[in-house]
Amino acid sequence: MSKIDPNKTLPQIHQRRTVAKSGLFTVEQIDLEFSNGELRTFERMAGGGRGAVMIVPFINDHEFLLVREYAAGTHSYQLGFPKGLIDPGEEPAQAADRELKEEVGFGATTLHYLQNVSMAPAFFNARMDIFIAENLYEQTLPGDEPEPLDVIKWSINDLDALLARDDFVEARCITALFLAQKWLKEQ
Amino acid sequence: MSKIDPNKTLPQIHQRRTVAKSGLFTVEQIDLEFSNGELRTFERMAGGGRGAVMIVPFINDHEFLLVREYAAGTHSYQLGFPKGLIDPGEEPAQAADRELKEEVGFGATTLHYLQNVSMAPAFFNARMDIFIAENLYEQTLPGDEPEPLDVIKWSINDLDALLARDDFVEARCITALFLAQKWLKEQ
Repeated sequence: MSKIDPNKTLPQIHQRRTVAKSGLFTVEQIDLEFSNGELRTFERMAGGGRGAVMIVPFINDHEFLLVREYAAGTHSYQLGFPKGLIDPGEEPAQAADRELKEEVGFGATTLHYLQNVSMAPAFFNARMDIFIAENLYEQTLPGDEPEPLDVIKWSINDLDALLARDDFVEARCITALFLAQKWLKEQ
Repeated sequence: MSKIDPNKTLPQIHQRRTVAKSGLFTVEQIDLEFSNGELRTFERMAGGGRGAVMIVPFINDHEFLLVREYAAGTHSYQLGFPKGLIDPGEEPAQAADRELKEEVGFGATTLHYLQNVSMAPAFFNARMDIFIAENLYEQTLPGDEPEPLDVIKWSINDLDALLARDDFVEARCITALFLAQKWLKEQ
């Protein structure tokens, strides 16, 4: 067993080079020297990205909304919470309110910040702020979706049934679900 | 509001082409036609990968082990659960036991499967099986880490303190933590 050493020396990055680039993705190789002298070359996605938001929108004290959307990576329809990238100049809470209007047709009077999460930090620098939205009102903004998203109502009391579904498996969505349940209990 | 339509027609993939390729990553573009006639070109990571495992290793009825490891994507040390890719020919539970031996120096007499999770399915087809490990015994296998991982003991009763840390933010780790807490409560 160890203690957490907050001053542990990070590896030195001796060289970085772009090795592949597409419209969305830039892959770079970095030559690393660890503090024990070990040399390694790792691949990672370049750039930090703009950050993203995910919203758990409650329509009353126990029911929330999910969207069902095509996921190209798995070529399947997936259930999840509304989410999206933060636009340049936007605050995370503004992005959350906008995405809610675009994806589910509601604005939020109240947004509670829950947590910032990452995804596979060995390869990506992708951060997402998770919010709860309450006191919704109908307002739609045009989004960039190729087809309207199905909007599904679910009860926090049926959490087990949601976790048992094979189309609700995205780790950031499951994290948001548990954080929302915890938040509700603590109110 | 909608009902979930399990028979919703998936978009047709008219064409796929590789647009970028590195040692680890292959990016492809796919030309899609949605059932409403809308045409889009999306990028995604090609290939389904081998699958991965993550393990929450309990050393008694409330304490578990974390590893602290360099993450190249964020260039920082991150706390998380031991994890790794499934080797060809391995069952997920075998991979979980092997990774535990490589990363924390313990084998597991008992492994409980908890959940299969995905990561950003809009772009990736990356699945991970989450396990709880119990009844551990000391056994080390050589891993491929550039430096020994710090192994940290934590109590499930200090869940809030772990969630408050800015180096425990990976969504699959937070998901595993909540699933482990739920599993413990249900025993």
